[in-house]
Amino acid sequence: MPLSINQLNAASPAEAVALLDGVYEHSPWIAEKALAARPFKSLQHLKHAMARVVNDAGADAQLGLIRAHPELAGKAMTTNTLTAESTNEQRKAGLTDCTPEELEKIRQLNAAYGAKFGFPFILAVRGPRGTGLQKQEIIDTFERRVDNHVDFERAESLRNIHRIAEIRLNDKFGVTPALGNDVWDWHEQLAEHSDPGFKEKGQLTVTYLTDAHRACAAQIAALMREVGFDTVEIDAVGNVVGRYEASVPGARALLTGSHYDTVRNGGKYDGRLGIFVPIACVRELVRQGRRLPFGFEVVAFAEEEGQRYKATFLGSGALIGHFNPDWLLQKDAQGVTMREAMQQAGLREQDIPAIQRAPARYLGFVEVHIEQGPVLNELELPLGIVTSINGGVRYVCEVIGMASHAGTTPMDRRRDAAAAVAELMVYAEQRAAQDGDSVATVGMLEVPSGSINVVPGRCKFSLDMRAPTNAQRDAMVADVLATLDAIVQRRGLRQTRELAMQASAAPSAPDWQQRWERAVDALGVPLFRMPSGAGHDAMKLHEVMPQAMLFVRGLNAGISHNPLESSTNDDIELAVNAFQHLLDDLAKEQTPTTP
Amino acid sequence: MPLSINQLNAASPAEAVALLDGVYEHSPWIAEKALAARPFKSLQHLKHAMARVVNDAGADAQLGLIRAHPELAGKAMTTNTLTAESTNEQRKAGLTDCTPEELEKIRQLNAAYGAKFGFPFILAVRGPRGTGLQKQEIIDTFERRVDNHVDFERAESLRNIHRIAEIRLNDKFGVTPALGNDVWDWHEQLAEHSDPGFKEKGQLTVTYLTDAHRACAAQIAALMREVGFDTVEIDAVGNVVGRYEASVPGARALLTGSHYDTVRNGGKYDGRLGIFVPIACVRELVRQGRRLPFGFEVVAFAEEEGQRYKATFLGSGALIGHFNPDWLLQKDAQGVTMREAMQQAGLREQDIPAIQRAPARYLGFVEVHIEQGPVLNELELPLGIVTSINGGVRYVCEVIGMASHAGTTPMDRRRDAAAAVAELMVYAEQRAAQDGDSVATVGMLEVPSGSINVVPGRCKFSLDMRAPTNAQRDAMVADVLATLDAIVQRRGLRQTRELAMQASAAPSAPDWQQRWERAVDALGVPLFRMPSGAGHDAMKLHEVMPQAMLFVRGLNAGISHNPLESSTNDDIELAVNAFQHLLDDLAKEQTPTTP
Repeated sequence: MPLSINQLNAASPAEAVALLDGVYEHSPWIAEKALAARPFKSLQHLKHAMARVVNDAGADAQLGLIRAHPELAGKAMTTNTLTAESTNEQRKAGLTDCTPEELEKIRQLNAAYGAKFGFPFILAVRGPRGTGLQKQEIIDTFERRVDNHVDFERAESLRNIHRIAEIRLNDKFGVTPALGNDVWDWHEQLAEHSDPGFKEKGQLTVTYLTDAHRACAAQIAALMREVGFDTVEIDAVGNVVGRYEASVPGARALLTGSHYDTVRNGGKYDGRLGIFVPIACVRELVRQGRRLPFGFEVVAFAEEEGQRYKATFLGSGALIGHFNPDWLLQKDAQGVTMREAMQQAGLREQDIPAIQRAPARYLGFVEVHIEQGPVLNELELPLGIVTSINGGVRYVCEVIGMASHAGTTPMDRRRDAAAAVAELMVYAEQRAAQDGDSVATVGMLEVPSGSINVVPGRCKFSLDMRAPTNAQRDAMVADVLATLDAIVQRRGLRQTRELAMQASAAPSAPDWQQRWERAVDALGVPLFRMPSGAGHDAMKLHEVMPQAMLFVRGLNAGISHNPLESSTNDDIELAVNAFQHLLDDLAKEQTPTTP
Repeated sequence: MPLSINQLNAASPAEAVALLDGVYEHSPWIAEKALAARPFKSLQHLKHAMARVVNDAGADAQLGLIRAHPELAGKAMTTNTLTAESTNEQRKAGLTDCTPEELEKIRQLNAAYGAKFGFPFILAVRGPRGTGLQKQEIIDTFERRVDNHVDFERAESLRNIHRIAEIRLNDKFGVTPALGNDVWDWHEQLAEHSDPGFKEKGQLTVTYLTDAHRACAAQIAALMREVGFDTVEIDAVGNVVGRYEASVPGARALLTGSHYDTVRNGGKYDGRLGIFVPIACVRELVRQGRRLPFGFEVVAFAEEEGQRYKATFLGSGALIGHFNPDWLLQKDAQGVTMREAMQQAGLREQDIPAIQRAPARYLGFVEVHIEQGPVLNELELPLGIVTSINGGVRYVCEVIGMASHAGTTPMDRRRDAAAAVAELMVYAEQRAAQDGDSVATVGMLEVPSGSINVVPGRCKFSLDMRAPTNAQRDAMVADVLATLDAIVQRRGLRQTRELAMQASAAPSAPDWQQRWERAVDALGVPLFRMPSGAGHDAMKLHEVMPQAMLFVRGLNAGISHNPLESSTNDDIELAVNAFQHLLDDLAKEQTPTTP
């Protein structure tokens, strides 16, 4: 018989603490303090109250909580002295079933981690359906995290402890994020398809029009049909398009979607979350036998990542008439042209122009996407409202000075190319920070053939600068480049620079952004607005119709384009609920009110 | 009949200008103005007066002078419209004798240089004996200089113009730097020996105990015998030791010398200048039938560069008992141990301890060396007084942050390893400059596998810090490392750092430094004191006796460890004269004055 919120609210203090026993490992003080906030309105309310107690408890108490946890697959497991909850979790992750080699690897990692940080490695190993992370993912995450800074690991441990508590509370209260679990499963199933050379290594890679890519399209199309879309088709560039028709004939449609291709050795959620979340919404509408007063068109874009061919945003671009026929002549690494690949996939290039949508037929475009960054994770927020997709420029630069002897060249007679770049880097970092939401990055940096005792004569570097509006971006770029010019001039150096990329900002349409905000607010999730630093399919649709995006938290420091990219069933459930709310909201707006 | 200073001083203004015709190409205004300084005390005085007119003339007049010069092997040469002086110089450099390929290469360089700088490439192509630079050296220098900054090239052009004027004035006045020419020749002859694999390419490489190295030792020994040293021997580590005995039996000796090994593809003067200059002094003493009241011991050190074996300063180290027997087991790239190499060269390792000198038997150690830096060249000074051989430390470091998406990671949530290193570099540069004569260099710098759109998670770099005293160096190092610690701490990063080298400073003994100063002053050369940024054999002798060094200007921005390292017969003549003065000075000090 699961616990209920009413039961917890009605219990005596001692009983209530007992009811919450085991939620936070060996730390009943958290329940004791959190219960002062009774009565709880919801399970979500209880979760937040308990998490807040931890976050407000101060560094010593937090460290005590972290240290109250057992080592992963450690002595407590092998000697059967874990709490019942930990035993269950470690067993479900397959950790009680390790080979001697795996146990030895984990033992070494535990030793290294403990020696470095002074507390045990904590990872929420259970996912939906009870299966959760697999042994190898756990070991990979462990290896990654042992390299982190202690401050980060302390915060990451607490985040994992909160996630563990969330799962344990779900168990106690018999609550299942059913929609989140299903959408999670769909991601797992789609991730079964991977390109040759990657699948064998357990890596996820789905590039344009490979067998794995076509299998993904077929699987998404099958799912759309299964849940009850009215029409499902794979279009001339490989996009999977499902329509759920409006209650009113001839009504305009809401367009949504994201991409199903991946980078090499990528994550399961990048793009795909924005396909499966609206599919779950349609399934619920069908189950309710409900039509909306507008059409709902979900597109799984075939190509966004530009991996097999340099044709980024091919899928969404085709919807706005941006298919470039020159792309057809491009060859992949095996020498196969895009035209050949399309013919082999049964796609007809002569049908591509017809894909272009008439904007007047659409209300707008919305896209759900995993954040691919650390912000929501750090703030412990499941959802974020995108204010703009940042515009960016990239330069590849070189500063040329004069190489000379590090011992014999006085400071005032140097033409040090690297010192000049360092000066620029310090400026660029400050200049971007000054805006608050601009970013500037020197990601590539090298003194070619540098020697310890030679003043650098050359320094190569890249500059990547992004901001939520073109004007803000351009002001920053102008300042940074003027500073580079001034530094180079003052130091008597030369420079070369090449514009490698330029993309316009795509600010969210205010009314669409507000619809997401109302949806998130209605879920009791704190509102958080943020720009998107990465590019998304919504940038293409932005050129012809209003758009706005919703971000879903990525765990593990928000890592993306990496197998460790991850989300949770609970967060996904919230994303589906938010999308449902947006649809309901829009339905109310579109229904003509009687005067 | 050569011109004389008296004749020039007595001439009418118009006659005097005519007498100096052609010294500065198509620019009689320089002679006109310089003649205001008559009467000239010496040719040296005239040279300085003319150079000063140019240096004080302002940028426009200087540019006019530079542009008055013909292109190297350019149209004026092929159409026979050069000045007589230029024709002579270009012919002697072999430029009138170029292959079509060489002419085409020079034509391209002239075009690139002219387009970049707006003036012709100027190089003093004549050396002593009229042979001067060879075609290939000229082309190499041209290729190197076309990459320079315009400010540098303007100054470098003027320096070459002054050098051309000096040669032309020597011609007019029938002056020959005879000692400088001989010492120049000795360098040329010794440079005939080079290790296999380099000699074929025309490159100079002489590493410890190779056939070329042993041939060098034999040649130096033969020269010492030829000029009249009393005893000459090759010692147990391969040093060539020549002694010119004192007039007084049992008198202490002055020790001097430098190394005859080279780096790979090195220059002709590095080390060897400090061997041949004192040999020239002994030759003159012998010619005069003169003995000094102290012994004079010239050592050509066998090993200083640590190229074949990691045994830097082996030659000078052996004189102070620092031969490390572990070195004997080291293998070269071909697997030959040092012991085997010594046996093959007929050196007896059991005799090594006997090489150690008794400091009480010596007055001190002096060393002449090419500067290996840009300072004297920039200041247009032929000689410099070394105040100290800088002490140095080297670190190899890595800062570790967290790689993350350049678009999605806000500035305030980054753990950017490269930004931290940039901040340190800006500080280190300022901190070293603050001392005036300290240097700090980040010569190696790299974001491993950096990407344009990834915030750097790692940044590797080197730190080389040097100063004239250990205290000054240590204060700087402490500040720089404390700043690194603070940056890493503040930004939540980690670091590793490894001490790669530490060497003590070797300040010059004040009385010995003053002897060099008196010698340089007596030549009418302005005194300029400077630390030595590079290490030298004098550092080893410093540990047991007083020492002081004299630097000779290196041309071509002071480039060293490079085939373009160069000196002139005039500068070398001055170095010999300075050394002679120091010997005379010391002879006076050592001669007991009658009470």
